[in-house]
Amino acid sequence: MSTPKEKFEAQFPSIVEELENVLKATKIAPEAIEWYKKSLVYNSVGGKANRGLSVIDTYRLLKNKSLDELSEEEYKKAALLGWCVELLQAYFLVADDIMDSSITRRGQPCWYKNPKVGMIAINDAFMLEAAIYILLKNHFKKEAYYIDLVELFHEVTFQTELGQLLDLLTAPEDEVDLSKFSLEKHSYIVTYKTAFYSFYLPVALAMYMAGITSPEDLKQAEDILLPLGEYFQVQDDYLDCYGDPAVIGKIGTDIQDNKCGWVINKALQKANPEQRKILDENYGVKSSETEAKVKAVFDELNIAQDFLDYEEKIAADLRARIAKVDESRGFKGEVLEIFLNKIYKRQK
Amino acid sequence: MSTPKEKFEAQFPSIVEELENVLKATKIAPEAIEWYKKSLVYNSVGGKANRGLSVIDTYRLLKNKSLDELSEEEYKKAALLGWCVELLQAYFLVADDIMDSSITRRGQPCWYKNPKVGMIAINDAFMLEAAIYILLKNHFKKEAYYIDLVELFHEVTFQTELGQLLDLLTAPEDEVDLSKFSLEKHSYIVTYKTAFYSFYLPVALAMYMAGITSPEDLKQAEDILLPLGEYFQVQDDYLDCYGDPAVIGKIGTDIQDNKCGWVINKALQKANPEQRKILDENYGVKSSETEAKVKAVFDELNIAQDFLDYEEKIAADLRARIAKVDESRGFKGEVLEIFLNKIYKRQK
Repeated sequence: MSTPKEKFEAQFPSIVEELENVLKATKIAPEAIEWYKKSLVYNSVGGKANRGLSVIDTYRLLKNKSLDELSEEEYKKAALLGWCVELLQAYFLVADDIMDSSITRRGQPCWYKNPKVGMIAINDAFMLEAAIYILLKNHFKKEAYYIDLVELFHEVTFQTELGQLLDLLTAPEDEVDLSKFSLEKHSYIVTYKTAFYSFYLPVALAMYMAGITSPEDLKQAEDILLPLGEYFQVQDDYLDCYGDPAVIGKIGTDIQDNKCGWVINKALQKANPEQRKILDENYGVKSSETEAKVKAVFDELNIAQDFLDYEEKIAADLRARIAKVDESRGFKGEVLEIFLNKIYKRQK
Repeated sequence: MSTPKEKFEAQFPSIVEELENVLKATKIAPEAIEWYKKSLVYNSVGGKANRGLSVIDTYRLLKNKSLDELSEEEYKKAALLGWCVELLQAYFLVADDIMDSSITRRGQPCWYKNPKVGMIAINDAFMLEAAIYILLKNHFKKEAYYIDLVELFHEVTFQTELGQLLDLLTAPEDEVDLSKFSLEKHSYIVTYKTAFYSFYLPVALAMYMAGITSPEDLKQAEDILLPLGEYFQVQDDYLDCYGDPAVIGKIGTDIQDNKCGWVINKALQKANPEQRKILDENYGVKSSETEAKVKAVFDELNIAQDFLDYEEKIAADLRARIAKVDESRGFKGEVLEIFLNKIYKRQK
């Protein structure tokens, strides 16, 4: 018995082979084929695959089927769309790691940190994105909704890039200026940089495949999935500061890295001039002493409690909105409920 | 009276405004809008715009019209496709300059070399590419050939990335190994990295807009434009070594930069073991002494004459093929002839 994740990952080798055959047909030198295969596997596999799995899960819920009840063809198509989301994420992460000067990702060196890779990683990122459109064409060209899939990927890609741009401009690693921060910018950044591609995209893809594609239904999904994705990222920011490193598997670095996270933005909203001065002088500085001073201000301001209050409020609000979902055209509130239940009060 | 280039460039401000409005509608912070506008102008304008102008020129030839005879709507649509090609090039060049550690481009610092830009340029490159699909959707969504345009851009983008990958693997700047070079790899690199997007793409876009879209006609265009693009790049490599710096406007650096150009590949094909040893020891080394030794071997081998022979042969071959173009479905050999005439025996 394989888990849903194992089943999903078992699909990837045939996707790599399909892309390998595209390269072979161009008669490119074998070393380039090996390079591309290595980049595909290194950068797409090894994460939690939550986004890819969400496509399959949403599809089977909309079709009222268990995983085992999907036909092989249905499963393969849904999994292919799931892998397209994972490829999109791989494209972003390879580039983000260069832009953030990151060292490790998913317990291994970032791709650009590998010997002989370096800045070739930029072209590799481009080629991860290109794979999406090759796969969509090969598997969905005959579907009436093919162009919708292509446009959806284009749109969500651009939205993610907009979020990344605002994040890079607001919180450059080498120039701390907390006057650039605000809860409003934080909301834009997390919605655009994370929520569109991580929450809305997988559900919208499943909806197209299931034939539930009225603009009203897509809007119902988006109207709940975007705040839900924002909530997810606020949790992420909270856990970076307050989570148990033993549980989340890493030690938070947002304070030293000058990240524009929810915790600092909430603190800036509440700080008096004295506290603000401490934050200005100690946020984004690479030392544990300054980090401790920032955390002391967070504690004075009781930001942890603010998060717990925020969580209760947003979860209740989302539950109320999910209860009101109009299911008359085939969309289901259950799809959204499952996302919320996975997220609510998560510790990692 | 404005030149065709001035007329084409006069279209760009409205394209920037259109993209600005897309960002405004998302309610992103104003500094991000200003950043994107600056990146669009800095990276897309200031070159020769040959690729963009080729779309308009090809379109009017296929329609049997002079530039002035095009309706305003026709001109705007053709120019928009031309700007999409220029945006695609901007996307590649911003990234290539980082990958090649280049310093200047079009007489100004490379985008990533600007203060405060740095690695943000990677996300800016992504956003230049994304602009293409926003513009295609806004202006061509209603056309039957809309999906053909989108797929053509996807395909050519991937082909260019394949050429760039093989180039990066074959000629890394920091590790000279001439045993990786070959005329065969050179042919692949220049065809994929340059010819598809610089020669085939503009013509194919104009053909779609003119309604000349049979697979046979697209193949006639491709079959001549790819070798023509290869010939153009071989000239480029020749001029880097043998051109007059006063005429071409720059001093060639291919030898010191370990570039996998036509001249070195031709020399490798002809060199005896002694000459090969000199090339192995002196190619890709950053000094004028080693460069002079490499050039001396090129002179012994008479590579300049080989180029002149190649040029006569390929030009005659292309002329013969252009003369045989089947014009029965509306395609015209004249389109290809104009390209060839612009290129033949060029000195810059």
